[in-house]
Amino acid sequence: MSWLELAPDHPFGVGTLPYGVVRPGGGVPQPAVRIGDRALPLAPLTGRLLNQRAGLFASSTLDAFLAAGPAVWAEVRAALTEWLTDPGYRGQLEPDLLPLADCPTVLPFTVADYVDFYASEHHAGNVGQIFRPGQPPLTPNWKHLPIGYHGRSGTVVVSGTEVRRPNGQRKVGDAIEFGPSLRLDIEAELGFVVGVGSDRPVPVAEFAEHVFGVVLLNDWSARDIQAWEYVPLGPFLGKSFATSISGWITPLAALESARCAGPVRDPRPLPYLDDTGAEWGLDLELAVRLNGETISRPPYAQMYWTPAQMLAHMTVNGASLRTGDLYGSGTVSGPEPDQRGSLLELSWGGAEPLTLADDSVRTFLVYGDQVSITASAPGPDGSRIGIAEVTGRILPA
Amino acid sequence: MSWLELAPDHPFGVGTLPYGVVRPGGGVPQPAVRIGDRALPLAPLTGRLLNQRAGLFASSTLDAFLAAGPAVWAEVRAALTEWLTDPGYRGQLEPDLLPLADCPTVLPFTVADYVDFYASEHHAGNVGQIFRPGQPPLTPNWKHLPIGYHGRSGTVVVSGTEVRRPNGQRKVGDAIEFGPSLRLDIEAELGFVVGVGSDRPVPVAEFAEHVFGVVLLNDWSARDIQAWEYVPLGPFLGKSFATSISGWITPLAALESARCAGPVRDPRPLPYLDDTGAEWGLDLELAVRLNGETISRPPYAQMYWTPAQMLAHMTVNGASLRTGDLYGSGTVSGPEPDQRGSLLELSWGGAEPLTLADDSVRTFLVYGDQVSITASAPGPDGSRIGIAEVTGRILPA
Repeated sequence: MSWLELAPDHPFGVGTLPYGVVRPGGGVPQPAVRIGDRALPLAPLTGRLLNQRAGLFASSTLDAFLAAGPAVWAEVRAALTEWLTDPGYRGQLEPDLLPLADCPTVLPFTVADYVDFYASEHHAGNVGQIFRPGQPPLTPNWKHLPIGYHGRSGTVVVSGTEVRRPNGQRKVGDAIEFGPSLRLDIEAELGFVVGVGSDRPVPVAEFAEHVFGVVLLNDWSARDIQAWEYVPLGPFLGKSFATSISGWITPLAALESARCAGPVRDPRPLPYLDDTGAEWGLDLELAVRLNGETISRPPYAQMYWTPAQMLAHMTVNGASLRTGDLYGSGTVSGPEPDQRGSLLELSWGGAEPLTLADDSVRTFLVYGDQVSITASAPGPDGSRIGIAEVTGRILPA
Repeated sequence: MSWLELAPDHPFGVGTLPYGVVRPGGGVPQPAVRIGDRALPLAPLTGRLLNQRAGLFASSTLDAFLAAGPAVWAEVRAALTEWLTDPGYRGQLEPDLLPLADCPTVLPFTVADYVDFYASEHHAGNVGQIFRPGQPPLTPNWKHLPIGYHGRSGTVVVSGTEVRRPNGQRKVGDAIEFGPSLRLDIEAELGFVVGVGSDRPVPVAEFAEHVFGVVLLNDWSARDIQAWEYVPLGPFLGKSFATSISGWITPLAALESARCAGPVRDPRPLPYLDDTGAEWGLDLELAVRLNGETISRPPYAQMYWTPAQMLAHMTVNGASLRTGDLYGSGTVSGPEPDQRGSLLELSWGGAEPLTLADDSVRTFLVYGDQVSITASAPGPDGSRIGIAEVTGRILPA
């Protein structure tokens, strides 16, 4: 327990300790750790108490810390845990704690390559039924490999950034039209942040040697633009206008109690995707809120492919990995209607509008809509581990 | 004419002047300009003769110069042209000139996002016939928008880098196999290097305010991996192992005499893609060599979409543009069989192997194959403007 006297089920207790980059009072960006509803800047603290690591937090990003690798990640986490639980440090740390409300976050690392996967069987099946009715919902390759594609790293933005509705082409009947997207959607995903790069393929068992932690990710999607453009080379402008991520990265070290086996896979995957003994399913429950109202609770534990399998697949062809590479899980959807992670699925392609608490109906997003995604996982001794919120509001085109 | 007394048709005469980053004697990387078969390092030269611009060349990349914009690009080019043509400068410059053979090039800029288009009607039509026989060769969207997708910027490598044959999954009959790609291919393309970023859509007419210059680009492609993975989200591991580009960037300013109108477009594109009065077709002839033998001469002038249209499309949804963004044209193929820019097309999906000068036959690449792509364009007064070679040799998996 921390001397901060947080509620035992606080999702950002001493078992979580996510890292971000904050601008205290709107000033200079600096790395920080989050505890409860406070941010603790890391450069001054490590300068006093862990001087050999202070250089890792001297810049305006977490890049150097991410690159430092698992031994350093563990050392810093152990030190923070000690300082925040041993009352003897209270006097030294307390003056540095800043209210989160005074600390806007910025993008916490330099995004190298951004890849998005498609790892939920329920999501892929729903999309297949909506987009390709009468055909098998999953493509023949789906259970043999984690399908993925590269997205635009230059438009990954931090939680809270407003999102402008994109313009683009769409096909309506036989006509080609241009204008603001009329089917602007969300995709509730988990994102994985690479710390340590690699010049060789990363086996499933070495996942935690390379991936530092997780964020929530909203893969904003313009369904009308996407539907017209995506054959044969995949999504492009329907996705590239914005991808939002949490301002705080929850380290994998906080998610040990959340690890679980994935579903039984049939057919059995090729050996490089076999995760026996290296299961990285994660028992996380997401919540999607539209203007404050919860519209879905997607369960992450049922994802078909784990992030360790995604990483093994992404590098098996010899493609190198870099510090700052980010990859998304793809939309998290469960088997139940209220567990779907996109409006496309929740409204079944627009055919079944949602009725909100204020009696308004919604298929896709309208101007001013605010979407927030949160998640938490089981921690030790009944505690909860939070993944920081990702939120964004829609501006007109 | 330069005092270097180059042949009048030398593709790297004073009308070309491409920029790169060299390691003289294998030492520290530094920006340079190429003249004839020499490299001229820019930091010492500008330090002496154009001191207000010397800072742009003080680092190990061209990033600062690219970001500086068209006025500075023109100022530096005008100065270099004067120094290399006025014999009065010969004494000052000649000692700095280094033989290219002693100057290996490195990747000349930090690649931000990498996008690959699909802008040759002949290529897209050939691929459609090979992959989807019996269906219309072009997808319904093809003549309405320049189809593109994001690739892996972390595996863009400089000309001369050896390329390891990728491993991956492929479907053979009903079996899923894993192993080294058996259908390793090339794609001969032109690449466009963004200098000045943008937070708003870039109209066709503002192309040259943002794009600095061009490189040759070899989009290495594992056709067996690609064919199995690419539905529905596009190419991924079949492309992400390596993309090679020239070590020297030829500025757009050198290509004024090469500008031409694109083909007549029917149907007429939407207004944001209308390039009337801003035609950026380019009359370049590429040559593809396999182990020294020319196997194809793809003409760039017949590309359906121009790079100005590609840029307008890529940003029309509001996606921002950054210094170092790189985009490829897609394979350049002409209407004739010996103008096709990929082995997939040259061997018609492997059904019609090429016979080489040594009587060996080839469908796709084998271990040790060396592929080189060169190109040139008309310059003023009958001169030729070269685009520096991109070359690479295949290593085993």
